Amino acid sequence: MALLGQMMSMPLLISSLIQHAARHAGDTEIVSKRCEGDLHRSTWAEVELRSRQLAQALGRLGLSAGERVGTLAWNGHRHLEIYYGTSGSGLVCHTINPRLFPEQIAWIANDAQDSALCFDLTFLPLVEKIAPQLVTVRHFILMTDRAHMPAETSIPNLLCFDDLVAAEDGHYTWPLLDEDTASTICYTSGTTGHPKGAVYSHRSTVLHAFGAALPDAMACTRRDVILPVVPMFHVNAWGLPYSTALVGAKVVFPGPHLDGKSLYELFEKEQVTFSAGVPTVWLGLINYVSSQGLKFSTFKRTVIGGSACPPAMLATLMDDYGVEVVHAWGMTELSPLGTLSRLSSKHLALPPAEQRRLLEKQGKAIYGIDMTIIDDARRELPWDGRSAGNLVVRGSWVISSYYGHEDTPLIPVAGRDGREAGLWFPTGDVATIDEDGFMQITDRSKDVIKSGGEWISSIDLENIAMAHPAVHEAAVIAVAHPKWDERPLLVVVTKPGASLTRDDMLKFYEGKIAKWQVPDDVVFVNEIPHTATGKMLKLKLREQFRTHTLPSA
Amino acid sequence: MALLGQMMSMPLLISSLIQHAARHAGDTEIVSKRCEGDLHRSTWAEVELRSRQLAQALGRLGLSAGERVGTLAWNGHRHLEIYYGTSGSGLVCHTINPRLFPEQIAWIANDAQDSALCFDLTFLPLVEKIAPQLVTVRHFILMTDRAHMPAETSIPNLLCFDDLVAAEDGHYTWPLLDEDTASTICYTSGTTGHPKGAVYSHRSTVLHAFGAALPDAMACTRRDVILPVVPMFHVNAWGLPYSTALVGAKVVFPGPHLDGKSLYELFEKEQVTFSAGVPTVWLGLINYVSSQGLKFSTFKRTVIGGSACPPAMLATLMDDYGVEVVHAWGMTELSPLGTLSRLSSKHLALPPAEQRRLLEKQGKAIYGIDMTIIDDARRELPWDGRSAGNLVVRGSWVISSYYGHEDTPLIPVAGRDGREAGLWFPTGDVATIDEDGFMQITDRSKDVIKSGGEWISSIDLENIAMAHPAVHEAAVIAVAHPKWDERPLLVVVTKPGASLTRDDMLKFYEGKIAKWQVPDDVVFVNEIPHTATGKMLKLKLREQFRTHTLPSA
Ligand SMILES: Nc1ncnc2c1ncn2[C@@H]1O[C@H](COP(=O)(O)O)[C@@H](O)[C@H]1O
Repeated sequence: MALLGQMMSMPLLISSLIQHAARHAGDTEIVSKRCEGDLHRSTWAEVELRSRQLAQALGRLGLSAGERVGTLAWNGHRHLEIYYGTSGSGLVCHTINPRLFPEQIAWIANDAQDSALCFDLTFLPLVEKIAPQLVTVRHFILMTDRAHMPAETSIPNLLCFDDLVAAEDGHYTWPLLDEDTASTICYTSGTTGHPKGAVYSHRSTVLHAFGAALPDAMACTRRDVILPVVPMFHVNAWGLPYSTALVGAKVVFPGPHLDGKSLYELFEKEQVTFSAGVPTVWLGLINYVSSQGLKFSTFKRTVIGGSACPPAMLATLMDDYGVEVVHAWGMTELSPLGTLSRLSSKHLALPPAEQRRLLEKQGKAIYGIDMTIIDDARRELPWDGRSAGNLVVRGSWVISSYYGHEDTPLIPVAGRDGREAGLWFPTGDVATIDEDGFMQITDRSKDVIKSGGEWISSIDLENIAMAHPAVHEAAVIAVAHPKWDERPLLVVVTKPGASLTRDDMLKFYEGKIAKWQVPDDVVFVNEIPHTATGKMLKLKLREQFRTHTLPSA
Repeated sequence: MALLGQMMSMPLLISSLIQHAARHAGDTEIVSKRCEGDLHRSTWAEVELRSRQLAQALGRLGLSAGERVGTLAWNGHRHLEIYYGTSGSGLVCHTINPRLFPEQIAWIANDAQDSALCFDLTFLPLVEKIAPQLVTVRHFILMTDRAHMPAETSIPNLLCFDDLVAAEDGHYTWPLLDEDTASTICYTSGTTGHPKGAVYSHRSTVLHAFGAALPDAMACTRRDVILPVVPMFHVNAWGLPYSTALVGAKVVFPGPHLDGKSLYELFEKEQVTFSAGVPTVWLGLINYVSSQGLKFSTFKRTVIGGSACPPAMLATLMDDYGVEVVHAWGMTELSPLGTLSRLSSKHLALPPAEQRRLLEKQGKAIYGIDMTIIDDARRELPWDGRSAGNLVVRGSWVISSYYGHEDTPLIPVAGRDGREAGLWFPTGDVATIDEDGFMQITDRSKDVIKSGGEWISSIDLENIAMAHPAVHEAAVIAVAHPKWDERPLLVVVTKPGASLTRDDMLKFYEGKIAKWQVPDDVVFVNEIPHTATGKMLKLKLREQFRTHTLPSA
């Protein structure tokens, strides 16, 4: 008969993170550049106190366990207080991406049945517009102080966040919840169809916070000053609001001020050591810093993910600015961290160029996540760095179903020995994995270019274009071809002031890739459309260039 | 009604650690200096395979879920295979300290009701001696290959470890256990009374492995080469067999070769970057390296704990050898890690000497552990760096009771606001905690010297003595005094060749501590007795010097 361990029973609760930070790093600073315009200074102890007061206030408003509280907000201390005040008290924090279309926002809030909606001043006009459609929202809370409350608004009974908090005494004990209780809902940024909600639990969130803080992941320490550029409305800012509490780091929130100049100044003023975000944000920051001839004085390390980090960007940050870049891959359904690219001890002896090739990949699975690649018959493919297949994952912080959906997206996979290897989540990404477990995304499965039965990776072609000094951004999409089915079309935005011809661009591919993979044509545009989370909207590009006639056709 | 998360259900199992290492760091090396004399090279993939084969073999021997498997073994790959092969398959790994007296070892094996006993060649004579007393052991397994099996032995049916493993095909799937299942038993090294067993669970062990690997803790990465000097029979080598698998690090095991010369040569040969152990082992290594005028070429970082790390040792390693020392505190009942001393961002601006004072403390609680200090009425004391009180802890990897004991050692504590603050484990240590959460052990509660109603810290007095160039080791104990109740007596072992007088020693305290705290007398001895885990046996010293008459008496 099994013997049981004789250990304290301590559920993995989100409240335990903020309590740890308040007790053991109470005076460590939380700095917020707010949409009101000021630079606000707080501490982990204050954030914890205000989270408790918020929990009291939400209870007083009649919200009870399991109800959803929506947010439309930038990165800032009030958003952090909502993270902890809701989840900590048994409510469910539901961050909504304010960059979506108003109709999508309303659809998502209704789908999640949000009972309350908290939003930053920036989004007052937006919420005024959609409020009539929000059929489940009973309380609208403006995340500001009394002085910034609007004189008039069409929103009935608009509540003031700071007033709600100030009215409570904080004599509140975090409840002892079941660790499998829902803590948070994040909707996928899905480029097609309706978005779907991933419902994280306290347990999955705390385990992800552990995984994300590991030295081979984000390596969060109490000596770091961490600025999450990735928004708190995008998969919980990759878990940083939790991992920073877990280690007691100083946190700096940029609010809506995400342009290169504002970010640079905040990095310098608050001595930021570590940041994380999607490639597009770094484009802006790098352009500003290089155009002004500036350097970073404390910024040492960054994690870049959400879409492929172009090797050229990695090189600029590492070689020109001395910032270590850790390329990461993840997705909403993974809370989001899956893999990060860091070398193993055996790679330290490799020549720098070979090390760089590894760092350009999306990297290795951290403990808590397992992954493999499969063919269309759902059989595991070899880890040889060449075989590309559908990437599947499983682990402690991977979803098993979507909010309001009974059916599971998980699929059975046959192991390489032919035996059943359990249920896995199909990511929709196409990838290779090498002998050392380094995964490289070659495409979204729907973006891959199928030319004459062979697959061409759009990401590979984009990375080459991005390395051209005149290119600001590049996208490669499939265009119909009478003979080859599909052929690659390169869409380019040039850098301001730079000039580039079709032929120069195509010549740039010579020697860098097999001839048959070189794009058939180049079109120059002013802008490439992006999703609300900064990914290129290839669906839109494909529509736009559906009738494009290739010279080869 | 509470909403549940919709995440994959993945129990926290020890088998998931070794599976992760085998899948994602399969060819990363496990190097073992064995008691057979050779240097053995293996990999995480091989260790996982052999663990599965061992699980099959133990099943074939008739062992079933929950049964205990004892070990008497050095640090090495076979011991690692036992760690995973037993716990992973639902058996309970019970590491026994071979440095205990034979009667104690037999007592512990009987108390745990071990069904099998695995032991290194070194311990064959020991096991031959105690085998008749081991009433529950059905299988004796010698951890060696066929060639090293003894021609004859008094042990009936002595089995050969490598033969058992080789006979199995490895077609074994790790069972899906309840994560609260017992994985491991470690007995406390208790200096009085019978030792007691701490029963860890899979869950507590995996969470401890996460905590131990964090950047603010042992900071284990896949770029590290990690040599656990701390024995696998001493609180699971502080969790390193688990944390190294979690991150996929290269591991180097020293076997019985723990003298300074052997360690140094192994560090250099295998390019060890990180190690961990008790202060006494470092004494040996430092003496060897300094006497030979050597330097370390790859060794960068060490965690020292188990007893107080003397500031002089910390200074030697940091200043003379460029090895970062992280002072840690823990105990068997905590799996064992509780606190580690690393600076926070706000301390980076402090002058080096002040930083050093912080690093000399036992440090801050890592997430997963909470701690505080209480007075004799069990009320929380202030965290002011001065108030000394009984240290209590709680957390995910703290025991709630001992093996075979129904009663709990946990005690209720009143928070600083007077409210009940839950149940805590009383550590038996006396400590201060400062405003920043840095804990400093001032004494074991039974070692503190009570002089005229005031407490004198024996550790403080020992640390001062240890800083004297002629002192090899120092212990301070309480001796009865007619007027003051107790007064401190300093017991000193001088360095080989060094000379030191009582008066010089006492003069050395001037200006370093309040006058009334200076020891009343000094005795010189050849050796200070230690427990089997390297802690000074003050109980024995107190007996020895019970009748010592102080000059002041
Ligand atoms: N480092 C990366 N390289 C390439 N694609 C990425 C990377 N990180 C994330 N993605 C893409 O972003 C998707 C997840 O989007 P989301 O759920 O919005 O975070 C993944 O399935 C990938 O297609």
